[in-house]
Amino acid sequence: MNKETYDLIEEYMLSSMDDAAHDKEHIYRVLYTALDIAKTEEDVDMDVLITACLLHDVGRKEQFENPKLCHAQVGAEKAKGFLLRNGFDVEFAERVSECIRSHRFRKDAPPKSIEAKILFDSDKVDVAGALGIARTLVYKGQVNEPIYTMNEDGSVCDGSDSECDFSFLQEYKYKLERLYSKFFTFRGKEIAISRQKAAVDFYNALLWEVSSPYDKGRSALESCINK
Amino acid sequence: MNKETYDLIEEYMLSSMDDAAHDKEHIYRVLYTALDIAKTEEDVDMDVLITACLLHDVGRKEQFENPKLCHAQVGAEKAKGFLLRNGFDVEFAERVSECIRSHRFRKDAPPKSIEAKILFDSDKVDVAGALGIARTLVYKGQVNEPIYTMNEDGSVCDGSDSECDFSFLQEYKYKLERLYSKFFTFRGKEIAISRQKAAVDFYNALLWEVSSPYDKGRSALESCINK
Repeated sequence: MNKETYDLIEEYMLSSMDDAAHDKEHIYRVLYTALDIAKTEEDVDMDVLITACLLHDVGRKEQFENPKLCHAQVGAEKAKGFLLRNGFDVEFAERVSECIRSHRFRKDAPPKSIEAKILFDSDKVDVAGALGIARTLVYKGQVNEPIYTMNEDGSVCDGSDSECDFSFLQEYKYKLERLYSKFFTFRGKEIAISRQKAAVDFYNALLWEVSSPYDKGRSALESCINK
Repeated sequence: MNKETYDLIEEYMLSSMDDAAHDKEHIYRVLYTALDIAKTEEDVDMDVLITACLLHDVGRKEQFENPKLCHAQVGAEKAKGFLLRNGFDVEFAERVSECIRSHRFRKDAPPKSIEAKILFDSDKVDVAGALGIARTLVYKGQVNEPIYTMNEDGSVCDGSDSECDFSFLQEYKYKLERLYSKFFTFRGKEIAISRQKAAVDFYNALLWEVSSPYDKGRSALESCINK
């Protein structure tokens, strides 16, 4: 890929990004990690991979404004349209589009090409470890969802109960904790696993810190207000 | 304090809370931690302490809407007004108000009474450790500020440079990392210190995770687009 082509695609990406959890730095991290993974795989079309990485979240804004939309589907169409309008050939546009369509986890539509698998893994690496924790908490702030919720008995819900909806602890238990088994490339999994302990330690520390005041404090309060 | 009085004050607190980083659960944690600290201190007026804990952030909404306002000042006045309107005596209202006024760190107005010192420490415990990290990241999402910023040379700013404004990493270096030396009670400091490692480990892991893709990826990209 020449510099002019890269700049054209990058400019379109930049014009599509405007929220903090999926900002442009996420795109560059995914791109750079994909290049790391690509070194360990064979027969990778680097132009398809670079273009798919740059454009994989161009449908985010549409999904943010209408949560019924899937940013992978919207982004695949938007990217294809952009590429065709700018003179890329149909086969290239369709290969990029297919990578973008399958980068979000769905059992019925797994990534098939090596470029799609690398994009998928690189995007998942960005939700692993401390960074995945940080990005998820920033998102919770954006959509005004809580760090944790309370059980009816007055204890902190640890996130493993599907009834406690939309908290960070639940998103950790249902999404972040489980992602390490969902990689297609050896190198992608290797990077994610190297970050796993930071996430596990953080969850455990956070749960302990938020639980312990209630555990001790509720009975201490009762002894003060019943005097 | 009797149950009726507690319920009246709690109800006023609940009517004043509506953002995720300073939601009502923050208030209960601060209250419960304050009761923990109070057990280790002498001559604590529990009614003043409980009331000050419940009402310490009632000025948050005003500061959120107008950042020039100090929520400690606004909250101190609002709490005093509420207490006087509801028949509490002037001395009680002023002692509670003074706790609230001095709970935010300012060199020229440190907390003086034991109740004020306990509130100050308990509120700071809630910014220590993994919870302080989580609450700060949620806040960054709410006000749309980034997790990190980039240096001009293309590397990640670690937050220690005052020129990189408003990022989470900077807030960590300038506020979260430094709070452990600012406690007035032994027990408050003890709780905070027990949480310190979780925060330090998270910062180090996050900085490493966000830096490593750029460190390797920029040169890898250059070798692809200059072909």
